[in-house]
Amino acid sequence: MKAEIITIGDEILIGQIVDTNSSWIAQQLGKLDVDVVQMTSISDTEAAIMATLNTASSRADLIIITGGLGPTQDDVTKKTAAKYFGTTLIRDQKVLQHVTGFFEARGLPMLEINRQQADVLANCEVLFNDYGTAPGMLVRHAQKQYVFMPGVPFEMKHLMVARVLPILEQQNSDTFIHHETILVGGIGESYLAEEIKDIEDELPPNIKLAYLPTLAFIRLRLSGKSKNKVDILQQVKLFKTKLLHRLKDYVIADQDTSIEQHLIKSLTRAGLSLTTAESCTGGSLAASLTAIPGSSEIFVGGTIPYSNRLKQLLLGVHEHTLSQFGAVSEQTALEMAQGAKIKFETDYAIATTGIAGPGGGSIEKPVGTVWIAVAGRKKSISRKFQFNNDRLINIERTRMNALLLLWKLLSEEEA
Amino acid sequence: MKAEIITIGDEILIGQIVDTNSSWIAQQLGKLDVDVVQMTSISDTEAAIMATLNTASSRADLIIITGGLGPTQDDVTKKTAAKYFGTTLIRDQKVLQHVTGFFEARGLPMLEINRQQADVLANCEVLFNDYGTAPGMLVRHAQKQYVFMPGVPFEMKHLMVARVLPILEQQNSDTFIHHETILVGGIGESYLAEEIKDIEDELPPNIKLAYLPTLAFIRLRLSGKSKNKVDILQQVKLFKTKLLHRLKDYVIADQDTSIEQHLIKSLTRAGLSLTTAESCTGGSLAASLTAIPGSSEIFVGGTIPYSNRLKQLLLGVHEHTLSQFGAVSEQTALEMAQGAKIKFETDYAIATTGIAGPGGGSIEKPVGTVWIAVAGRKKSISRKFQFNNDRLINIERTRMNALLLLWKLLSEEEA
Repeated sequence: MKAEIITIGDEILIGQIVDTNSSWIAQQLGKLDVDVVQMTSISDTEAAIMATLNTASSRADLIIITGGLGPTQDDVTKKTAAKYFGTTLIRDQKVLQHVTGFFEARGLPMLEINRQQADVLANCEVLFNDYGTAPGMLVRHAQKQYVFMPGVPFEMKHLMVARVLPILEQQNSDTFIHHETILVGGIGESYLAEEIKDIEDELPPNIKLAYLPTLAFIRLRLSGKSKNKVDILQQVKLFKTKLLHRLKDYVIADQDTSIEQHLIKSLTRAGLSLTTAESCTGGSLAASLTAIPGSSEIFVGGTIPYSNRLKQLLLGVHEHTLSQFGAVSEQTALEMAQGAKIKFETDYAIATTGIAGPGGGSIEKPVGTVWIAVAGRKKSISRKFQFNNDRLINIERTRMNALLLLWKLLSEEEA
Repeated sequence: MKAEIITIGDEILIGQIVDTNSSWIAQQLGKLDVDVVQMTSISDTEAAIMATLNTASSRADLIIITGGLGPTQDDVTKKTAAKYFGTTLIRDQKVLQHVTGFFEARGLPMLEINRQQADVLANCEVLFNDYGTAPGMLVRHAQKQYVFMPGVPFEMKHLMVARVLPILEQQNSDTFIHHETILVGGIGESYLAEEIKDIEDELPPNIKLAYLPTLAFIRLRLSGKSKNKVDILQQVKLFKTKLLHRLKDYVIADQDTSIEQHLIKSLTRAGLSLTTAESCTGGSLAASLTAIPGSSEIFVGGTIPYSNRLKQLLLGVHEHTLSQFGAVSEQTALEMAQGAKIKFETDYAIATTGIAGPGGGSIEKPVGTVWIAVAGRKKSISRKFQFNNDRLINIERTRMNALLLLWKLLSEEEA
């Protein structure tokens, strides 16, 4: 099946917000083997909406439209869609009740403009929105399917997960799709491709392998498609086993997860605790861990000893280490990690120190020089990196490699 | 002038990367009064590129195309463009020299595929790319302008700033455009609009006011356009003065800046220092400050006392405060801020403590309950917030409001 995604709204066209909906929707559709052939962002005008629905319908079987359903704008999008399909708008009583309840609960007066939120296309299946007042709508018209959803990300995601994807899955119920994902780290994309070339060449036409890389990790996703469920499950798992075996030195997780989630889960399961001591990452490492629900189970907290004084005061780094080797050195990184581990009584501690740039570089230690150390239950490890000139990318690369180093030590000490 | 932005690449269509180029380009064009009428993401195929160039040309005067110029893919995009314009590709000697130098400097062998990076449309003006091997190209064809650029964000931004925008400015040289921006905080968008309604109504047709909101701050941008430079400068500044006067309680900065940049600049100028003590924001507050070059001038470092033990150990929060009032309380927030300020000998300290969710809520303190405190040179202030159920949005709202509170205390103590 081919799909097209249309986002409606001037705030995207003037660059005020970045459209993150389209890529999220594309990821979900990809898992159902639906190919997105085009994404389009347009203005909230009748002419633009009519023209885009027309051209999208000529290319795709499924057209997903987000945005333009808010109370101040809903006239043009819904009215234009009604015109496009040659239908009218009718007031849906269940949605009206929901909208009324929403306003009553907040003690807010309800205007006609709010009641209009309950107006839906007469030819649609209503996709009830538990999280907001604008319902989604599914229209089947001339062999094509059109899905209208609000543009607010969490409302759109709710409608996709709870309403749209189950419908699409059911339509495909004669074809079974199965995914298996592996998270690997510490190997570049081209080396990885080389390493598994023969396995990739062996894949039958109904199993595809996708590389999903970030700055330091790659997710490998096997997607198999068949009318025979048992058969395809078995086949995909066979290839997964081959990949796991071949890549055993790099495999972090044998399922679809992030490095942060994986580490928190591993530490939680083993009853181990963690602290962070961040100089050059400036808090972003801890922020990425604490963004995950449940992180407080293993993360006691951390420090951001930016100045030399705080490196001494918070972590007990020795003054002579700083003066002899400098703040950006293996010795300082190790003392930071070991000091943090002892002071905060954790099983593991990660430390970062480096020159993120643009200032602060020298001939011996140019911008992009970074030391990372991890102190563990049995030993400490450290590694030097030489990144480039972009401050934000240097911070992000350091953060990711710090997580990779923690994973390595954790694996060694568990083995 | 009307513009359309086309991004080419399957990695966008499968949702592997979010297209951030389009919104950045739209922001830059907006400043030159160029309206973006559509953004389109398409596959790297001849059919899709031909069709999209065709329809874009029917709507816009300026068509900006990014992506599809890398060494492995450049055949199809450049060849398709050549076909579209009825021209050929020629090898540009200056670009070839640049590409050759790039490979020599890295000691890498150079293949024919790399030399092809120097092939450009015969009818183009080459937009020389200092930061990469794929040059940009400007084509003038049938009263329209087409700009081709690589999709790598920092190369694209370099080409826009150094090559494309100056050309567009010059083309518009008979019309002068002037922007003035004000950053305000602590007031909602609808209240702000109400507050300045009469000033907005007074604006002449050649001066526009744009609201650019985030979760806690709004940038107001006045954009004037005229053939008379002196005249428009004066007019825009007059309205800016009116807005500054009317909004004096909310104005953070009278120029285009972020709250983080503004605070760092203000503190640096006044020779003041800062520390952060983050429980519920988990490092994201410090990360947002340290992302800015030069932040080490004022930021000595910070702490992330996630556990109660670290709140006591790092900041000297009293055990009886924690047991009597709880970790999420005004008393704890104030002790965190004051403890951090004294321990790390800074002029200012920000503390956050709250229940980000999804777990940890209770009837008295539901998920989304947050206390922020700021300790200053003369006094401390604190404020309670009740946010909602989304962990990441709660963290981000807390972070932004913590910066707002620091700004408030700083303003009071400077006055």
